[in-house]
Amino acid sequence: MAVYTEVGDAELEAFLADYDIGEAEAFKGIAEGVENSNFLLTTTRGQYIVTLYEKRVDPKDLPFFLGLMGHLAARGINCPQPIHGRDGKALRQLAGKPAAVTSFLHGMWPRRIAVKHCGPVGEALARLHLAGRDFELKRPNALSVADWRPLFEASRADADSVAEGLVRELDAELAFLEAEWPRDLPSGVIHADLFNDNVFFLHDRLSGLIDFYFACNDALAYDVAICLNAWCFEPDRSFNTTKARALLQAYEKVRPLESAERQALPRLARGASLRFLLTRLYDWIHTPATALVKRKDPLEYLAYLRFHRSASSLASYGL
Amino acid sequence: MAVYTEVGDAELEAFLADYDIGEAEAFKGIAEGVENSNFLLTTTRGQYIVTLYEKRVDPKDLPFFLGLMGHLAARGINCPQPIHGRDGKALRQLAGKPAAVTSFLHGMWPRRIAVKHCGPVGEALARLHLAGRDFELKRPNALSVADWRPLFEASRADADSVAEGLVRELDAELAFLEAEWPRDLPSGVIHADLFNDNVFFLHDRLSGLIDFYFACNDALAYDVAICLNAWCFEPDRSFNTTKARALLQAYEKVRPLESAERQALPRLARGASLRFLLTRLYDWIHTPATALVKRKDPLEYLAYLRFHRSASSLASYGL
Repeated sequence: MAVYTEVGDAELEAFLADYDIGEAEAFKGIAEGVENSNFLLTTTRGQYIVTLYEKRVDPKDLPFFLGLMGHLAARGINCPQPIHGRDGKALRQLAGKPAAVTSFLHGMWPRRIAVKHCGPVGEALARLHLAGRDFELKRPNALSVADWRPLFEASRADADSVAEGLVRELDAELAFLEAEWPRDLPSGVIHADLFNDNVFFLHDRLSGLIDFYFACNDALAYDVAICLNAWCFEPDRSFNTTKARALLQAYEKVRPLESAERQALPRLARGASLRFLLTRLYDWIHTPATALVKRKDPLEYLAYLRFHRSASSLASYGL
Repeated sequence: MAVYTEVGDAELEAFLADYDIGEAEAFKGIAEGVENSNFLLTTTRGQYIVTLYEKRVDPKDLPFFLGLMGHLAARGINCPQPIHGRDGKALRQLAGKPAAVTSFLHGMWPRRIAVKHCGPVGEALARLHLAGRDFELKRPNALSVADWRPLFEASRADADSVAEGLVRELDAELAFLEAEWPRDLPSGVIHADLFNDNVFFLHDRLSGLIDFYFACNDALAYDVAICLNAWCFEPDRSFNTTKARALLQAYEKVRPLESAERQALPRLARGASLRFLLTRLYDWIHTPATALVKRKDPLEYLAYLRFHRSASSLASYGL
């Protein structure tokens, strides 16, 4: 849920005058996206999303994010398409914040993940990877293996109060992953945050992908590993191999994994678990319990991490 | 900003099957309404609002609220119109909460109140009062003069920590209003919460009134007094007589105030200030500073109250 900035009606009118998308008929803050303020804009022409980029997004990354969405949309990926103003620009200012208008995607994100969702997600992820191959801009992953230790250090003092023995377990995990992190895998643009609230479905068909504000260049198989974490665990933290198989098989129909990627998958999945565990742990420790943004339980990802650590082979993932 | 309850996609589908409004194409939580959860529903037929009634609304009041909106809409008032299901019912359950679908109103609420808004608000309020005359259901005002003292008592212990001398000032004000509260004024259905975020404008014309969840039966002129508080003070807490004159004159073009109502206006305005001061004071004291709902400064209304107390005649309101 996120509306951090109020937009005045006169400001909005002036902002929209730079676009050729009709006149505003409604403008409502929506509970979508955690990092930015999002508004649903209804004009005489249709529906749009207006995003104000708040402080957790680095303005210098915006050309990458907006350029990528435009690039992917032009290649048939259903994602928010940045709308260019009369001056050709997609990025301008609104209420003192960087802001952009994007197309409105139909569909709803699945509140309860079922097996039927996992195949379409795998397929869409592979299509995204292929469509991103010739995108020219680059953005390194700011939350990859080298970044995890500093993130952990910022939470170390309080980590054992979240779970007994957590410091020792994470220290060991970090040491392992820093030594054994897969290098030289096929890389390209990854979404890096393809959780269920970023995937829309309509009548059981995947209708769109949103929230590209963690997208970056990294190993493609790491994106697959993130999705295994995001889509294949049950509410009781058990791993659903049927979901994993559906996701991986559908991915491979579009883009078969190379042998090195398959071998790396358990380690990549451990890394993906650790990445979300560490950001959640940081937020858990540094965000007041009653704050505007609801904290997510970091221990969920500790359970996921332990599953991947115990995964002896690819059979654990249904391969 | 308010989405307190998550709605599952299967739940939504089952809910909509009881209506004849097309199939869902999007469903987004919106930052509108403080008491309830509101969602913007886009279907193959158009846009609608789905409201889930949360714990601050008494379910037994819902037939009054929904009935009133239907009654007013049928008489040409632009307000959310409850959509009836195939069984004729407007009220059912969604995600375990009472829920209703209403029509979608175009327009945006003015973030910065200007003189040009005040005339249309006065006119719309008078039209609302006339249109409500033959509404059959009754709901007493749960926040009128008899309710203020208990509300104050619940905050008394901490009130002086909010502003020095507040307890003594409010004690005296309550004693005055309990003795001098105007009785036997023309009464009927009042909105009772017609603040700027409940009034939509489109191209400088008033396009709709929303949020009827404080509506009740009370003195019509008390509703006017609430609007004087809500629309005619500047951000620096000074009173703008030009705005008041515009509001009152436009009101009187539709429904002239009776002599008793005019004489009562300063006292009604004091009462209206006190009512919002007391609910804000209660929330200020009983809500953690970092909670999900942003607290509003009660002292704003102390300034308004003092203005009305000093108002020696109707000339203060531009009459």
